[in-house]
Amino acid sequence: MADTVGKPIQCKAAIAWEAKKPVEVTDVIVDPPQAGEVRVRIVATALCHTDAYTLDGLDPEGLFPCVLGHEAAGVVESVGEGVTSVAPGDHVIPCYQAYCGDCMFCKHPKSNLCTSVRAFTGKGVMRADEQPRFHTLDGKPLYHFMGTSTFSEYTVVHEVSVAKIPKDAPLESVCLLGCGVATGWGAVYNTANVQPGTSVAVFGLGAVGLAVIEAAKRAGATRIFAVDINPEKFVAALEWGATDCVNPKDHDKPIQQVLVEMSPSGWGIDYTFECIGSVEVMRAALECAHRGWGESIVIGVAAAGKEISTRPFQLVTGRVWKGTAFGGYKSRLQVPDLVAMYQRGETRLDSYVTHRMKFEEINTAFDLLHSGQCLRCVLTFDS
Amino acid sequence: MADTVGKPIQCKAAIAWEAKKPVEVTDVIVDPPQAGEVRVRIVATALCHTDAYTLDGLDPEGLFPCVLGHEAAGVVESVGEGVTSVAPGDHVIPCYQAYCGDCMFCKHPKSNLCTSVRAFTGKGVMRADEQPRFHTLDGKPLYHFMGTSTFSEYTVVHEVSVAKIPKDAPLESVCLLGCGVATGWGAVYNTANVQPGTSVAVFGLGAVGLAVIEAAKRAGATRIFAVDINPEKFVAALEWGATDCVNPKDHDKPIQQVLVEMSPSGWGIDYTFECIGSVEVMRAALECAHRGWGESIVIGVAAAGKEISTRPFQLVTGRVWKGTAFGGYKSRLQVPDLVAMYQRGETRLDSYVTHRMKFEEINTAFDLLHSGQCLRCVLTFDS
Repeated sequence: MADTVGKPIQCKAAIAWEAKKPVEVTDVIVDPPQAGEVRVRIVATALCHTDAYTLDGLDPEGLFPCVLGHEAAGVVESVGEGVTSVAPGDHVIPCYQAYCGDCMFCKHPKSNLCTSVRAFTGKGVMRADEQPRFHTLDGKPLYHFMGTSTFSEYTVVHEVSVAKIPKDAPLESVCLLGCGVATGWGAVYNTANVQPGTSVAVFGLGAVGLAVIEAAKRAGATRIFAVDINPEKFVAALEWGATDCVNPKDHDKPIQQVLVEMSPSGWGIDYTFECIGSVEVMRAALECAHRGWGESIVIGVAAAGKEISTRPFQLVTGRVWKGTAFGGYKSRLQVPDLVAMYQRGETRLDSYVTHRMKFEEINTAFDLLHSGQCLRCVLTFDS
Repeated sequence: MADTVGKPIQCKAAIAWEAKKPVEVTDVIVDPPQAGEVRVRIVATALCHTDAYTLDGLDPEGLFPCVLGHEAAGVVESVGEGVTSVAPGDHVIPCYQAYCGDCMFCKHPKSNLCTSVRAFTGKGVMRADEQPRFHTLDGKPLYHFMGTSTFSEYTVVHEVSVAKIPKDAPLESVCLLGCGVATGWGAVYNTANVQPGTSVAVFGLGAVGLAVIEAAKRAGATRIFAVDINPEKFVAALEWGATDCVNPKDHDKPIQQVLVEMSPSGWGIDYTFECIGSVEVMRAALECAHRGWGESIVIGVAAAGKEISTRPFQLVTGRVWKGTAFGGYKSRLQVPDLVAMYQRGETRLDSYVTHRMKFEEINTAFDLLHSGQCLRCVLTFDS
C-alpha cells in the first residue's frame, strides 16, 4: 500500500487562476478521498476544446481558481470509505459524466445524464462535504472542474465518475476515451443510430468530427460529407473515411443548400452532426437533413446566451433535431467497452494524437489547440 | 352509370375569390377527370383551421380564386383513364397528403411525404395538364386547394389522393379523418410513439389537441396535461382524458417552468405536442420536455416567416424536437384503418362534431370556427 494513503499529497498541477490567462504549473495539495471518493494518479491527460473554452472565459459558469482537465487516464492511489467498485492499483478513466446506476436517468435506456453528483461538480466541489480537495501550498482552495480536474498529477473524483479499465490498456492512448472521441462515436451509434447505406454530413473536422466520420464509416454510411472552412482539415477527413469534402467558402449559396444539392437523393442528408458549437452551423446542419426522416445531432457547445433557430416547417416536413452529451454513453458502464474495442484493434484511436508533450508544457499545448493544427495533444507526467 | 360521366358537371361550390372576404356559394363547372384522376361527389365536408388560415390571407402561398376544403368524404362519380384503385360508387376520403406507394418517401418506413403530385397541388392544378378542373359558369378557372377542394358538391382529385373506405361507414362522421383528428392521433402513435405510463402535455385544445389527448390516453399515458389560455376548453379536455388542466394566464412563471414543476418526476414531461401554430408555444413545449429523453412534436402550422428558437443546451441535455404532417400516416394506406377503428367503436370521433349545417351556411361555419366555440362543423349537401 502506498505510504500516501490517508494523507494529503503534494504534487504538480496546472492552476487556472483566472480566465484568459495561461495556467500556472506549480505544486498543490490534494486531500485524501472522503466517503464515496477515489484519489487517482493521472498518467496521461489530453486537452479538449472545453478546457480551452473555460480558460478563455467563455463558460459563464466557469469557477476560478480551478484545476482544469477532463480527458485522462490513471491509476487509483487510494479510495475513501464505502468505495467498492475500484481499489488501489486499478487503472481508470475519470468520467465527467457520472454513472451511479441508480438514478432515474441511469435507469432509463435512452439517457446517460446521471444526476448523482451533478449539483456538486457544477459548483466545483465534492459531494461529501461540499468542499474541494485541492489547495495551494498556503491553503487556498482550488475548485474542481467537470468533476475530474485531470490537469494534476493526483486528483480526487467521485466513485460514480471512474470507469475501471484493464491494466494492459495503454493509458496514454485510452485517455482520449474520456471525452472527444467517445462523444463522436456515441453520437453516431447511440444518438443517431446511423444505418448502413445512408449519408452523413459532419460539420467541423476536429477530433470530435473525425470520430463521427470514423464511426459513421464503421456503421456503414456510404456517403460521408466532411465540412470545414479550413481545407487543411480535409486530408485527415479523407483518411478517416469521408467521401466528399466541402468548404463553405467555395460556395456562394448557403451551405445547407449546397449539401442538399450534393446529397445522393437530392432531398438532403440522412444524418448530420454539428461538431463546432456555432448556432449558425447548427441551423445549417438541421436544414440540410433529409426531408422526411433526416436527423441532425448537436454535439458542439455553443457560447452562453446563443440560440438555435429555424422555420418550424423544417420539422413538420420530417427533420428531427437532437443533441448528445458524451455521445449518450453510460460512462462507467460503457467506457470499458470502448477500451476493449481499441484493444481489439478496431479503432484508429492513436491517429487522433497529433502531439505528445510533458505536462509542464501545457501552455504550449493550449496554444497548439487554438492554432487548429492539433487534434489531440497528450500530456504525461514524469514518474 | 351516372349520365354525368365524361361530361362537365354544374354544381354548387364555395368560391374564395380573395383573401379576407367571405366565400361565395354559387354554381361552378367541374370538368371530367383526366388520366389518373377521380371525380368525387362530396357528401360531407368539415372546416379546418387551415381553410380559415388561407381564407384569412395568412398562407403566403394561397392562390385565389380557389375552392377551399380538405376534410371530407364522398362517393366516386367517375374516374379518368388508367385509374384502377377506385371505381364509380366507391366511398372515399380525399387526402391532401397523397400516397403513390412508389416514390422514395412512400417507400421509406419513416415518412408519409409522398411527392408524386405535390408540385402540382402546390400550384392549385392537376398533374395531367397542369390546369384546374374548376371553372366559373363563364369559364374563369378556379384553383384547387391542397389537392382536395372539398367545398364543392363535386371535386376532382388525383387517384393517389383518395382513400377507399367501406360503404357502411357514415360519411358525415368519417370525413373528420381527412385531416385534424387523424393528425392528432398519428402524432401520438407514429411521430412520438407514446409509451404506457408516461406523461404528455398538449398545448392548444382544438380538435387536434383533443385528438392528441384521446390517442395519448389510449396509448397508456397516465398523466395528460391540457394547456390552453381559454379555460372553457378544459371541460372537453377532461372529458377526452386529460388529468390536469393548466392555464398559462394563471401563472407568473413561464409555462414551461410551471409544467416542469408539475411533472411527475420534476424533470419535465415525456412527450409534448404543440397544436396551435405559435412559435413561442413551440419553444415552451420543447423546453418542458423531459431532460434526457423528452420529445416535443410540432403539429401547428406557424405563420409565414416565423421561426422557432431555443438554447442548444435543451437538445444537448436530451430533448428531441420533431414535427408531423398528417400525423405521419401514409394516407391511402392507413386512412381505411382509421375508419375501421371508428367502426369498431374504438374512437370518440363523433364527439368532435359540435355543429352540423347545410353547405350553404359555410360562412356561418367559418365564423363559428373563429369564435373558438366550435371543434368541428360538418357541412352536408342536399341531394
